[in-house]
Amino acid sequence: MSSDRLIYLPLGGAGEIGMNAYVYGYGAPGKERLILVDIGVTFPNMDTSPGVDLIYADVAWLEERRDRLEAIFITHAHEDHVGAVGLAWPRLRVPVYARPFTANHAARKMEERGQDPAKINVVGAWPERIKAGPFEVAYLPVSHSIPESSALVIDTPAGRVVHTGDFKLDPTPLVGEPFDRGLWAEVAKPGVKVLTCDSTNVFSPNPGRSEATLGPAIRQLVERAPNMVVATTFASNIARVRTLAEAGRDAGRSVCLLGRAMRRMIEAGVESGVLTDFPATISPEQAAGIPRSNLMLIVTGSQGERRAASGQLSRGKYMGLELKEGDLFLFSSKTIPGNERDVLRVVNALSEMGVDVVDDANDLYHVSGHANRPDLSTIHTLMRPGAVVPMHGEHRHLREHVKLAAENGLHAALAPNGTMLDLTGDVPRAVEHVETGRTYLDGKVQIGALDGVVRDRIRMAMNGHVTVSLILDEEDEPVGEAWVELIGLPETLPGGEPLADVLEEALDKFLSRADDRVMTDDDLLEKDLRIIARRTAENEIGKRPEVTVVISRLA
Amino acid sequence: MSSDRLIYLPLGGAGEIGMNAYVYGYGAPGKERLILVDIGVTFPNMDTSPGVDLIYADVAWLEERRDRLEAIFITHAHEDHVGAVGLAWPRLRVPVYARPFTANHAARKMEERGQDPAKINVVGAWPERIKAGPFEVAYLPVSHSIPESSALVIDTPAGRVVHTGDFKLDPTPLVGEPFDRGLWAEVAKPGVKVLTCDSTNVFSPNPGRSEATLGPAIRQLVERAPNMVVATTFASNIARVRTLAEAGRDAGRSVCLLGRAMRRMIEAGVESGVLTDFPATISPEQAAGIPRSNLMLIVTGSQGERRAASGQLSRGKYMGLELKEGDLFLFSSKTIPGNERDVLRVVNALSEMGVDVVDDANDLYHVSGHANRPDLSTIHTLMRPGAVVPMHGEHRHLREHVKLAAENGLHAALAPNGTMLDLTGDVPRAVEHVETGRTYLDGKVQIGALDGVVRDRIRMAMNGHVTVSLILDEEDEPVGEAWVELIGLPETLPGGEPLADVLEEALDKFLSRADDRVMTDDDLLEKDLRIIARRTAENEIGKRPEVTVVISRLA
Repeated sequence: MSSDRLIYLPLGGAGEIGMNAYVYGYGAPGKERLILVDIGVTFPNMDTSPGVDLIYADVAWLEERRDRLEAIFITHAHEDHVGAVGLAWPRLRVPVYARPFTANHAARKMEERGQDPAKINVVGAWPERIKAGPFEVAYLPVSHSIPESSALVIDTPAGRVVHTGDFKLDPTPLVGEPFDRGLWAEVAKPGVKVLTCDSTNVFSPNPGRSEATLGPAIRQLVERAPNMVVATTFASNIARVRTLAEAGRDAGRSVCLLGRAMRRMIEAGVESGVLTDFPATISPEQAAGIPRSNLMLIVTGSQGERRAASGQLSRGKYMGLELKEGDLFLFSSKTIPGNERDVLRVVNALSEMGVDVVDDANDLYHVSGHANRPDLSTIHTLMRPGAVVPMHGEHRHLREHVKLAAENGLHAALAPNGTMLDLTGDVPRAVEHVETGRTYLDGKVQIGALDGVVRDRIRMAMNGHVTVSLILDEEDEPVGEAWVELIGLPETLPGGEPLADVLEEALDKFLSRADDRVMTDDDLLEKDLRIIARRTAENEIGKRPEVTVVISRLA
Repeated sequence: MSSDRLIYLPLGGAGEIGMNAYVYGYGAPGKERLILVDIGVTFPNMDTSPGVDLIYADVAWLEERRDRLEAIFITHAHEDHVGAVGLAWPRLRVPVYARPFTANHAARKMEERGQDPAKINVVGAWPERIKAGPFEVAYLPVSHSIPESSALVIDTPAGRVVHTGDFKLDPTPLVGEPFDRGLWAEVAKPGVKVLTCDSTNVFSPNPGRSEATLGPAIRQLVERAPNMVVATTFASNIARVRTLAEAGRDAGRSVCLLGRAMRRMIEAGVESGVLTDFPATISPEQAAGIPRSNLMLIVTGSQGERRAASGQLSRGKYMGLELKEGDLFLFSSKTIPGNERDVLRVVNALSEMGVDVVDDANDLYHVSGHANRPDLSTIHTLMRPGAVVPMHGEHRHLREHVKLAAENGLHAALAPNGTMLDLTGDVPRAVEHVETGRTYLDGKVQIGALDGVVRDRIRMAMNGHVTVSLILDEEDEPVGEAWVELIGLPETLPGGEPLADVLEEALDKFLSRADDRVMTDDDLLEKDLRIIARRTAENEIGKRPEVTVVISRLA
């Protein structure tokens, strides 16, 4: 069929770091059979999404084409790749594929949302292949900051696509498979039509460093510490957690894991067989009985999360353990942009306790899990694809990655979320723009980012809220006066007068002069009362609050 | 009087970067005559202070002792040192002193808040002295990122205090006075009892670089740019603005200043005589008629502020000017921690336009205005004070600065906000803890950070808001049913039922069974209705909203 085409459509991840969701399709235009690669979350913040629990790419486009969707493939177990599988699954209802460790997490994500974990299919690595409509997909092992990360080799009638997932070129990742150049070269041999490639570290100018380089420095730090040592990192960075634990053990310290995610990840690593030789650990209860200088805690909360172990320890006791003057706290991690304030809150609280904090400022105690600029060039050159399609990054990363590919003599296509590329020809071509968006998990409910719910919350946070109540009798006359209730507004004016009184006075003055046309029309009356309340508040306190008007008519 | 003492009390700035406010006192305990050094602001954020306009140190302690307050001294014209003068003045009502350029800004701050700008007294630099009760204060010029920055030499009966203000050791600051080692040595000669010292850059390991080092790199960048160049920096960094403007002029470009603060600062610099030889500028209207490759814009908004020129240009036209593919945007600035998300929003919007963004990542286009760690050591060694009191910094900075002073063989005292030090003896001694806090400017009203107003707003932002209304007749029976209005909550449940209906049903069920004791007691009834609404919402949507209950009784 000469009209068949191979398409690519990022629904998430190509415009942000987080919430990855990439669609590939093959077939006649508008009738392509589809697969989805990854379905991850991103995290809310007070600026744009207060009160929201999780965010993932709106899969409405796929949902409407569910009959054409063959399968979902998860590249690795990071939240921004697998975290939304349980949320999105009821909307998509197709088989999900993942390697064992990743599948373990995906199954848990399904269970958490009341979905059937058996929908997760465990698959092996290359050369094993999964058939999904016109696609054949294989998991190509690659190094990253979590075990079992894989690129996907996606064979299609139009040629081979290699979708890197998140990766780095680490010959010694300590846990999980190393980057195997020979294997990747073998994959590239028949020709790679498109390399869809991780972009997060395109601005990092130096070659990435191996996980194995950290051991000696961490060991030295822990050995020299006179009192208790506490270290934090992403729980999913199992190699790092093991390095930290080994440094503790080798310094004669008992090791205690704190935080649910930390313990769960290590268990999952052991269960799935990717993690071996993890040092013996003790419980928090046991730790409380051990001299502080013989103790090492490995804790959750590297991003300053309030409820994680690090956050709780920075505010006092946690599980019977507490930090004291002269203890050492190591951030074996990088602060993700946007989390600076949260992390610094923890650091300053630790400083107030007299705890010495060490972070990654001097590059000694942390390495990134992503390919840096020279590493990206290495992959470009090794794979020699017909084109590079940068993915996973903010717009600035994608754009820079396009430039880098050009420097390497390769075609490249800039495709932010919603840009459908036709990959069939020699050069990718944008053929359509699809509306994309974000779905919020808000408590137990999924809402659209643009539904207005969160916008209203932000407005209340900025402006406060006024309830105006009014009762009207059968003759449309006010029963008593209008009254107001305030939330999130100053009670008194600079002159000392209660704000509520001033608002009520203005409302009553309006009501005393309002004509029948207004008093008989709830919509009109509500609108007018809202305007009066807002205008008066603006004059008096310089803020325009959100207003709820409650009009009750005695029938 | 042998019982007289010299005290130091930071009300703000010793626990954060921002809102500087330091008290010195001399006299009998509890009767000290007082002076205040600096009265600056810090900026709100959505996480902790949504809707707030400005924040400054609560001066309640001083306000209660106003009869003992002699004067306010402003070290320099940065917002975090002078920004609250107009807000705090009505509470303190004493003369304010500043050098001319700083006084110009202080006077404007007074006018903005309806205060008399004549309360600002213009003073000259060292050796001029201002007498204020038992104190004699002189302005010792020093380099920083704004002209006319000064340390204060505070002579007291107990000895000399040098309060550095913000500073760096720059022999060639381009605008404003260089650091004059000889002058500082002269000040130190009679002996310095205490050095109260800027701590912000104590973690920066390398010696600070001079403002003058930036010119060549900026010039080269601007010269090589093929299309329009836009540069942003803090408007108050007049030296930088001139360097940028000169680079534009020398590359044959017309220079246009965009943003009110940018134009105002340059005007103030010229008026006060600190700025000379600023290149000719053109208006936005003129700029619109000039070929893009001959144009350079210098704009406000280096921190990603939405309403600043950079923010507006990142979203489209501003003052008739707009960015296009191939233009260059230079951040000649550092992103202040906490502003990362805002700055990246601008950067990504520019990326979408095809604009090339250059920032300070490679240290070519920005230098800090503060003394780095080795520079602090230089000052320690030069002044050889009896003790160092670190100020202006988060707790972690103050603590590290204490360590650095110890490394340099000096006594040092850690004194976060509220710690009153007795400086009289050989070593500073903490003698009292004073409750400190933050005052919020919220629209036109000043409120306390702990008044609950902002807390309620944050709760509404997290949880949404429900209004519950109920009318009761003379027999305490409901007239009709309870009804609810929602803001910031999903309208429908996952099953499709309206949330409002479900809440109303639960409330009515409760009301149908409520006994007289409840129905006759507004407080009890209100409490019960709130609990029902919250509990039902939590069950249905997993959120506990804020609830306003309005009960109307027909008398």
